[in-house]
Amino acid sequence: MTLDQLQSKFEAFKAKKLALDMSRGKPSAAQLDLSNEILDVVTSKDYLSSQGTETRNYGGLDGLPETKELFKDFLEVSTVEEVVIGGNASLTIMHDIISRGMTHGMCDSLQPWGKSTIKFICPVPGYDRHFSICQHFGIEMIPVTCNSNGPDMDEIEELIANDASIKGIWVVPKYSNPTGLSCSDEVVDRLSTMKAAANDFRIFWDNAYGVHHLSDDNDVLKNILTTCKAAGNSNRPFILCSTSKITFAGAGISAVGGSVANMDWYRGHLFFSTIGPDKLNQVRHNRFFKNIEGLHNHMKKHASLLKPRFDKTLSILENELGGTGLATWTQPKGGYFISFNVPNGCAKRVISLAAEAGVKLTGAGATYPYKNDPNDSNIRLAPSCPTIEEIEQAMQIVCLATKIAALEVEVV
Amino acid sequence: MTLDQLQSKFEAFKAKKLALDMSRGKPSAAQLDLSNEILDVVTSKDYLSSQGTETRNYGGLDGLPETKELFKDFLEVSTVEEVVIGGNASLTIMHDIISRGMTHGMCDSLQPWGKSTIKFICPVPGYDRHFSICQHFGIEMIPVTCNSNGPDMDEIEELIANDASIKGIWVVPKYSNPTGLSCSDEVVDRLSTMKAAANDFRIFWDNAYGVHHLSDDNDVLKNILTTCKAAGNSNRPFILCSTSKITFAGAGISAVGGSVANMDWYRGHLFFSTIGPDKLNQVRHNRFFKNIEGLHNHMKKHASLLKPRFDKTLSILENELGGTGLATWTQPKGGYFISFNVPNGCAKRVISLAAEAGVKLTGAGATYPYKNDPNDSNIRLAPSCPTIEEIEQAMQIVCLATKIAALEVEVV
Repeated sequence: MTLDQLQSKFEAFKAKKLALDMSRGKPSAAQLDLSNEILDVVTSKDYLSSQGTETRNYGGLDGLPETKELFKDFLEVSTVEEVVIGGNASLTIMHDIISRGMTHGMCDSLQPWGKSTIKFICPVPGYDRHFSICQHFGIEMIPVTCNSNGPDMDEIEELIANDASIKGIWVVPKYSNPTGLSCSDEVVDRLSTMKAAANDFRIFWDNAYGVHHLSDDNDVLKNILTTCKAAGNSNRPFILCSTSKITFAGAGISAVGGSVANMDWYRGHLFFSTIGPDKLNQVRHNRFFKNIEGLHNHMKKHASLLKPRFDKTLSILENELGGTGLATWTQPKGGYFISFNVPNGCAKRVISLAAEAGVKLTGAGATYPYKNDPNDSNIRLAPSCPTIEEIEQAMQIVCLATKIAALEVEVV
Repeated sequence: MTLDQLQSKFEAFKAKKLALDMSRGKPSAAQLDLSNEILDVVTSKDYLSSQGTETRNYGGLDGLPETKELFKDFLEVSTVEEVVIGGNASLTIMHDIISRGMTHGMCDSLQPWGKSTIKFICPVPGYDRHFSICQHFGIEMIPVTCNSNGPDMDEIEELIANDASIKGIWVVPKYSNPTGLSCSDEVVDRLSTMKAAANDFRIFWDNAYGVHHLSDDNDVLKNILTTCKAAGNSNRPFILCSTSKITFAGAGISAVGGSVANMDWYRGHLFFSTIGPDKLNQVRHNRFFKNIEGLHNHMKKHASLLKPRFDKTLSILENELGGTGLATWTQPKGGYFISFNVPNGCAKRVISLAAEAGVKLTGAGATYPYKNDPNDSNIRLAPSCPTIEEIEQAMQIVCLATKIAALEVEVV
């Protein structure tokens, strides 16, 4: 089709005055409904923990024993001492660990991180909220490319070994935001064993999508705490998870796992800032899941809602753009996102055209530090919330916008 | 009675092998029962906010509109823009504001507080958790005596006017922890109007017991935000409150109030660390209270449980120690504590003797910065949790221990 023909087709879409949204990685109402029972399992007649703990009063800095037990299995750590339960967002735990690093340093820091200029490695494309935390604290971000098996380890090993001011790396190890891809065993091994110039180097292992498979054909992630321990780097990883995309995004439970030294350090800091997370919500989650198998079974219900949405998104991409050489995209086995790469210099234009036709996409550059995608190429697609029919329309528009933007660039 | 006679009476108490606790300012089980209905007002059939907001998903950084409305009335601020809803503890808000002060500074700071040595004024006796936060961040604490109408304003005005490194003051303005006494209008006025050398000086107005009257004969606190605004110091106060001692201590709602500039500053920081507090718990609280009158009425039920406990504590103090000149104590009209002063050099000994006889009291020095009561005189009594019978026994032991300790000191 010529640019004229594409544009006339585009005008027809615009005339429909659609209002579609593929920008937010949030659960749909139908997904939330899957957990509604959690609102009924604690009542005025029945609110004690399984061990009879008074859940209404103060106490329990790092979580109820039964909740730590459940999240020990979820985080795949060895003991409940390696677990701290948080509030309704792992974002808070990540922010707080870094904030405490800035003011006090880690358990093995020679001085607070804030006393000098420090840097974090940021695999790209990545999660904007990670980058925002770094920017907020003035932490310099070093982007490193993500390959299909995880971040580029050659580059990372080189950086980490030679620069003691690099104190951290963000990794979404499984069904990553936004690629949907997972770290290979080799990447996990190399992250765990690599030599770090900073003795207080930390991996922020944000396993937000660890159990969020789309089908039984799922990725298996090597246990980073085990490999770090074996390499003598037991304090290296902080492993994050939450039930935000399992039960309720606004009223779930978050947790962090890691070495006892790291968890004791964190508990020591928590003493000053909290009386412990809401124990009633912990009881709700324990009763709802019963155990880790219950949680895994629950995820299959999410998959049944998410898989058709991913399939529809991918099939339109394939039908409209397959073989054209105009774009590439990932084919995730889980998670919430598809990473979509349009020709260099076209991402902003595609997002802007899509908006004109009523399709909201994640902002251009959002997947890069400082919102700066140097190639202006990456777009994050989030198919969880719209209906299949909405995805059909939205993706037709996204593909059409891609073709138009690509031709416009050629013309220029 | 001679020391020998007192000691023999004391041995008789010890032989009873009691296990009593007057150390913790926490609600009794009967008080928690008063709010049990809150566990039933949100169910799988009925979980939306009054305005139809989806409460299960992401969103709502600073609280639901209806919850901000309720806490606007509770905090006695003018608009919902002057309110930010938090999680289950105002302790977290206080810690986080100071932590952000250290890393970034207040909205009107010239540089982050952590860039130089800073100080806080700490009225004594006061709340140990306030002092712990200061110590944790290396903030130097300057103790100032609390009088019956609030902290000594002559001393404070002198300090604040001349030392720009003093960035804050802790005040529990009503039914203070541990004195149970409230700030007079004059103290509120002077705190609001006093000249501060630091332009980013803040009052942490921890109104934890603002509605916790023991009877209809209650203290009335002047509105500090109004007086600060009138004095051109609108950014001076952060007003804190929570429902920890209204609904559930572990699963309540906290909030902070203040100028729009302060709240916008705080919201700006919250963006990096939270997706917003649990909205389902906000709906529970809104439905349970309905409005601020509902909250005030609810407090009368707490008073009916607390008043007899305070009365029993005070009557034993009066019967055993009244007129002896050995001790003084406060007679609060609300709150959770009675401040009890034994002869200088005797507080540790009294607490230790009480422990020998099975009565747990708050640790000596806890009400002072660095846990250092220079007179070793102040003891915090917390009558909320024990039964009337337990208070009877515990206070007999405390009074006996006081007499023994006083005689021991004389002997030395």
